[in-house]
This record gives sequence, C-alpha cells and structure tokens, in this order.
Amino acid sequence: MKTPVEFFFDFSSPYGYLASELIDDLAAAHGRQVAWHPILLGAVFKTTGSQPLVHQPLKGGYAARDFPRSARFHGLPFTMPTPFPVATQAAARLYYWFHDQDSAAARVLAHALYRAYFVEGRNIGDAAMVLTIGEAQGLERARMEAALADPTVKERLHAETGEAVAQGVFGSPYFIVDGEPFFGVDRLPQLEKWLRTGGF
Amino acid sequence: MKTPVEFFFDFSSPYGYLASELIDDLAAAHGRQVAWHPILLGAVFKTTGSQPLVHQPLKGGYAARDFPRSARFHGLPFTMPTPFPVATQAAARLYYWFHDQDSAAARVLAHALYRAYFVEGRNIGDAAMVLTIGEAQGLERARMEAALADPTVKERLHAETGEAVAQGVFGSPYFIVDGEPFFGVDRLPQLEKWLRTGGF
Repeated sequence: MKTPVEFFFDFSSPYGYLASELIDDLAAAHGRQVAWHPILLGAVFKTTGSQPLVHQPLKGGYAARDFPRSARFHGLPFTMPTPFPVATQAAARLYYWFHDQDSAAARVLAHALYRAYFVEGRNIGDAAMVLTIGEAQGLERARMEAALADPTVKERLHAETGEAVAQGVFGSPYFIVDGEPFFGVDRLPQLEKWLRTGGF
Repeated sequence: MKTPVEFFFDFSSPYGYLASELIDDLAAAHGRQVAWHPILLGAVFKTTGSQPLVHQPLKGGYAARDFPRSARFHGLPFTMPTPFPVATQAAARLYYWFHDQDSAAARVLAHALYRAYFVEGRNIGDAAMVLTIGEAQGLERARMEAALADPTVKERLHAETGEAVAQGVFGSPYFIVDGEPFFGVDRLPQLEKWLRTGGF
C-alpha cells in the first residue's frame, strides 16, 4: 500500500481551493490516496513571521490578478470573495469532527465549504454559514454546534496545525509525498512527475 | 510587430537563472522577442519590505530543496553556489553598458554570468570575477573597469530598477506580456498559454 499524499490547506486560501479540485484525481492516477489536513494559516504565519499575500505591498495587487487567472488556467470556477481572508476555525473544526465519523463524507463537506466561499461567495468565516453548509450535507445543527464548542475538537485543530508546522508547512497548499515537500498549486506538475517517476 | 516579453531578474536569483534558460525559446515559439532587464532585488525588497527566501523561517529550507529540484524538473544544470545570495551591481551594470553597444552579445554575456554562478559556482558578486567573465566574451578589462565606475552606468541600473518597481515588479523572475504580469518560473505555463491564445 503506497503512502497517501499529505495535503495541507487553509479553507480561506484561493490556491488551496484550486489544489482541492485537482489533487485527488492527480494522486489517484498514480494509485495514491490523499490525506486532507485543514490548518489555520494565521497560526502558521505567527511562526514564520509572514502575512497573507494580499496584505503585502505590490504582491497583493498581483495576487488579486493571479487568483482568477490561475483558476481560468485550470478550468475551474472562481469568484474572489469578500470579506477576504476570513478566519476558518469553524470550517476546519467541523471538518475534523465529521472526518472522524465518516472520512469520505467529510471530503464532500470540504469541497462544499471551499466552493461556498470561492464560487458562491458565501462567508465561511461566519460559523452560522458553516452550520448551514453542514446542514446541506445532512448534518444536524445541534450536533454541529456542540462539536464546534467541544474542547477536544478545538484541540484537534490546534494539534493538526502544530504538527503541520513541525513538518515544515509554511503556506497553503502544501503537499508532502514520501517526505518530499511541494508548496503551491504551481508545484503540482513537479508533484505529478514525482509520483510518476518515484522521484527525480 | 508584436511587443516583446519583458523579463525582469536579478543575477543572484536561482529561479531567474532557470527562467533565463527557458524564456527566449518559449517566446520565439510565439513570434516574440524578449527584453531582458537585470535589476537589483535588494532595492526592490526595500520597497516591498520583503527579504530573500533563504532568510525566511521554514521557507529557506524548502527553497534550498526546491531550487535544484526545479532545475532537474526543467532538465537544466544547477549547483547551489556559496556565497548566496550575492550583490549583483557589477554584473547588472556590465550587462547594460554592453547591451547599449551590442544587445545580442550582451544576451550571451548574461547567460555566461548566470551559468558562471549557478552552474560553475563562480562568485559573480565579486567585480573581479565579473570582469574575468567579460574578458572571456572578448571585452577589454580596462574598458569594463571604466564602465563599472561610470556614474551614467550606475544611474542606468538604478533607473531600470526603479522603473521595474513602478511597473509592479516585486521579485525575480517577473514577466510582463502586453501589460499582463507573471511572477515566477512556475508561471511560464500560464505565460505560454497567454502568448498562444492572446489571453485567457
């Protein structure tokens, strides 16, 4: 059994969204599963001293142009949401809580969250919106509310983010294949070659 | 006559070196020339508040791995030089001075400078090394020494760097095609599609 491709992302990351639409098929073409790890980029940036692209001089304007262009390049729907970026604690906590019950359904939920934000412009930084999206996936609102307030669920996300940083993750999307790190949706061609050739 | 692809780079930039080996053929395949613009990334970073990748937490270690892997991906020779990064005033000044006499020969000089640093490990941050590389291109040492000390040549590089920043350039390599900006050697597939389709 081949090891899965590890996929780290923040639900507020445009390039993470693009990667989320591409990575499963890419990995499957080479007989690999993908382990999805939503993390909190804000916490990561505290470690790296970095900040969101859109807040950086010159880079912000470029990124605003590159996000939709990269989506068009990959043939994916994309609309820049406002507000942006948003806090993604609720989205990521809901994901992990659901994942531990039904990992396949949680993958569907993750796609729904990403598409809600980057295609439909719904504010997934708002916990109430996250619950509404969860309800559309058949989850009970009261159970979700309890999960989002559960200290063990909070701790799970905190631990996942810390473990990501410990593995060198500094941005979104970030992939690890058999110990080899790839940062950015623009590294998917190298990741694909790595899977295809066993390393180059 | 189609407008040239504008190519901005620092002679100390690994991804700039990779781009320098690829961009002319890519542009030529779509009937375009390339206008090369060496700039001083240090001066650009003063504007953007950024710093070299290798000095950033976590990103530095990743970059040290991604530089040679990206070179292998593109089938290009690469050896990480020390010291790195280096100041590239001498290399860039010599380029502009020579360019204004013989632009085709200056392109050959630019390749020689990049390969000296990133393939042969020669320190092009040392002005004496830059002169030695220039001599191998048939340039007279005394004339080059005079050029590197010439205030108009210094001003030329300063102006080119300032103009690059004014056009939004924040890193290396950076390309502009008919007003559309592309940052990074990993954007060459998008740049190629842009040239091929006239924008997408």
